[in-house]
Amino acid sequence: MAIVEPTLPGGFKDYLPEDMIPRQKLFDGIRTVFERFGFVPLDTPCVERSEVLTGGDAEFQKQIFYVSQPGGDKDSTALRFDLTVPLARVIASYGDKISRPFRRYQIGRLWRGERQQAGRYREFAQCDADIVGVAGMKADAEIIALMDSLMTELGFDKYLIRINNRKILNGLSEYASFESEKTNTIIRIIDKLDKQPWSEIESELKEKVSLNDTQIEKIKAFTDIKGEKQEDILNALSKLFWEISIAEEGISELREIMSYLDAMGVSRTSWTIDSSVARGLGYYTGPVFETQLLDLKEIGSVFSGGRYDGLVSRFSKQNVPAVGASLGIDRLFSAMETLGLVEKKKNVLQALVLNFEPKAEMKVMQIVSILRKRGINSALYQGSENTLKGQLSYAVKEEVPFVVIVGESELNENIVLTKNLGTREQVKETLDECIERIIKG
Amino acid sequence: MAIVEPTLPGGFKDYLPEDMIPRQKLFDGIRTVFERFGFVPLDTPCVERSEVLTGGDAEFQKQIFYVSQPGGDKDSTALRFDLTVPLARVIASYGDKISRPFRRYQIGRLWRGERQQAGRYREFAQCDADIVGVAGMKADAEIIALMDSLMTELGFDKYLIRINNRKILNGLSEYASFESEKTNTIIRIIDKLDKQPWSEIESELKEKVSLNDTQIEKIKAFTDIKGEKQEDILNALSKLFWEISIAEEGISELREIMSYLDAMGVSRTSWTIDSSVARGLGYYTGPVFETQLLDLKEIGSVFSGGRYDGLVSRFSKQNVPAVGASLGIDRLFSAMETLGLVEKKKNVLQALVLNFEPKAEMKVMQIVSILRKRGINSALYQGSENTLKGQLSYAVKEEVPFVVIVGESELNENIVLTKNLGTREQVKETLDECIERIIKG
Repeated sequence: MAIVEPTLPGGFKDYLPEDMIPRQKLFDGIRTVFERFGFVPLDTPCVERSEVLTGGDAEFQKQIFYVSQPGGDKDSTALRFDLTVPLARVIASYGDKISRPFRRYQIGRLWRGERQQAGRYREFAQCDADIVGVAGMKADAEIIALMDSLMTELGFDKYLIRINNRKILNGLSEYASFESEKTNTIIRIIDKLDKQPWSEIESELKEKVSLNDTQIEKIKAFTDIKGEKQEDILNALSKLFWEISIAEEGISELREIMSYLDAMGVSRTSWTIDSSVARGLGYYTGPVFETQLLDLKEIGSVFSGGRYDGLVSRFSKQNVPAVGASLGIDRLFSAMETLGLVEKKKNVLQALVLNFEPKAEMKVMQIVSILRKRGINSALYQGSENTLKGQLSYAVKEEVPFVVIVGESELNENIVLTKNLGTREQVKETLDECIERIIKG
Repeated sequence: MAIVEPTLPGGFKDYLPEDMIPRQKLFDGIRTVFERFGFVPLDTPCVERSEVLTGGDAEFQKQIFYVSQPGGDKDSTALRFDLTVPLARVIASYGDKISRPFRRYQIGRLWRGERQQAGRYREFAQCDADIVGVAGMKADAEIIALMDSLMTELGFDKYLIRINNRKILNGLSEYASFESEKTNTIIRIIDKLDKQPWSEIESELKEKVSLNDTQIEKIKAFTDIKGEKQEDILNALSKLFWEISIAEEGISELREIMSYLDAMGVSRTSWTIDSSVARGLGYYTGPVFETQLLDLKEIGSVFSGGRYDGLVSRFSKQNVPAVGASLGIDRLFSAMETLGLVEKKKNVLQALVLNFEPKAEMKVMQIVSILRKRGINSALYQGSENTLKGQLSYAVKEEVPFVVIVGESELNENIVLTKNLGTREQVKETLDECIERIIKG
């Protein structure tokens, strides 16, 4: 039989144990915080009906992966590319089986057929937390408080949650007197202000959306809004959008969120109002949030979300308000690696029981089973090294904290030799003493 | 826009929170035991090259799900249908980056396009633990000890791990003097002996594989082997397969496993030798194991495995011995439900803070954030009920253990009213006392 190349398709990736051990710790940490905020887990299939995923929108054609059986229909089912559409489907289909408000989290894999580039994968993991069924801003504030808690618990200290409201951006056309159809293009242009000088933004506004000088001046006044304090920014926005009701509504929602964040003790240094935040234009209907790592601004937001009150409109005529946020695990994990927040571990062993003395063969098997019964992650050495020395160097290479040694003399005396590979200390002792030592660590 | 039906493709399934909460607990329990036995987590993509998955074998055509992008190659990539082939690919491709022996576990989803039937899904989860790189029977014994520990820790008390060796079955043709090509068919026939009377088995052996009376008599003597004690069965097998070297080798391996299981304290009541166990014929090369739930025999094995020394032969000329076992989560979980081993929970909340007194609005937000900082899973009531009574019945319906109530009088006195919904006891107390009460549970 011909040998098959053991390779992966482009854009897919293995997680070997030394990546997977800290990744799993990260997932556990995320779950703990989500549950502390009262979110419950939901799981949905990776494969959905294509129509459910795309809503018939041809734009998704570039990104989608279809799933088919030989001879079957080639495009009726596909791999999910987000966790929000499956949530909407669940909300639309289970009715009363799901009580509202529904605070759900979901951790899962997604697939997107993006053009391959460094650090971008076609299969990746995402963690979403959403509150479904609450129209008021308390829910938005809770999502922001969750983002803040999670960033802190994961060990980040320099981050900024930037908050805006789509309703303010939707007021721009009235404020600067341009046709509302131009709004999205204009937002996309001014979104680049952190990378480009104003002169370039100005030319783009002239060329791409034919704004005149008065209009451009108004846009400039909007983008110039800065402030040390959240109140200052909100007051400046209020002044600018005076009597533009949609924007005023947005500003007042942000004021409400501010008061709730204060009540929940979310530090004012963790977040700000930033009127340049837009977050994927078509989707959101109210407040939007993103999280910037201040030492790694170039990687973009690691934890983002917002309010999207049209959640289930694809599936039902119900009106269901919702707000939530998504955490991209791969980007977050790689940021944590860069910032030294990841402890790499090659294995999960607390103790390795060596196995070099033929007379002690049954004894060491018994010992390893006792260690396990006492809750110690442990294994019997079963590699190809037959000597104490060879097995010890394996343990050192694998960074096992403790080795348990039973040679002929230990066997005769019914004791073990416990060796701490960190301190290089070694002690002859009873198995009970050894177990206590390993548990203490 | 037309409304899209919020339905799943046939054979796929959602896990709503009340299923997902205990499922997650199950996954956590499995991980804990796997790690206690020194297994490290590995993760591989759900999508692999089709050639990697099938090795070019056309037989998989019926089961495979291809993954393709619009306009792309339709069958070059597919969803994985087991976790063993990805393990083999990893072993073949990372060389020294993976130290041997490699004890890895993997928990993941698989897809198989099986004909739809009740309780069978096309997407399902599986947990595998394998030891790669150990030829000796100690590894097989460790896998069996792992199976035994896990079954016990999950709460099963009536189960039986049935152990056999493919080498014994491979000795059948020499023992009963039939052509070795008939072995697989004959095994498949006698495998039905627990459901069919001997007379039917006998006719099948005559009709399907043309065995004569002497041959059939020999087969009967083999299937008649029973025994209270493991030794008795092994001795009977030894007598039957006298000087049939492949079978003798298999029997001696089982004796070795028995001595290791004894050394590891695995109770003799947890396992037996059962010469009818065959486990997917082509795959295994040595000992095979399966786990029967004695109160639910009809569902088949929930945790099965064996030795397969040809692991990486598809990808390389290396000879890599391996032994492992797979746990099918859906079957296991449904068995646990039937046996009352699953605690259904609708949510993860330890406390719900009610929110009915407008004056206390900020106070209750503050309280919920303090509870969370103290590690209590908690949420603020944000549903549509505005009264104490309405919010309380929501909490009762959701089975929340504690509610924290702040009405006008509690607000003025700077205390809270803690209500235990289990005991219906309620106490006015300070927030600190309330927190202590909730933590005690």
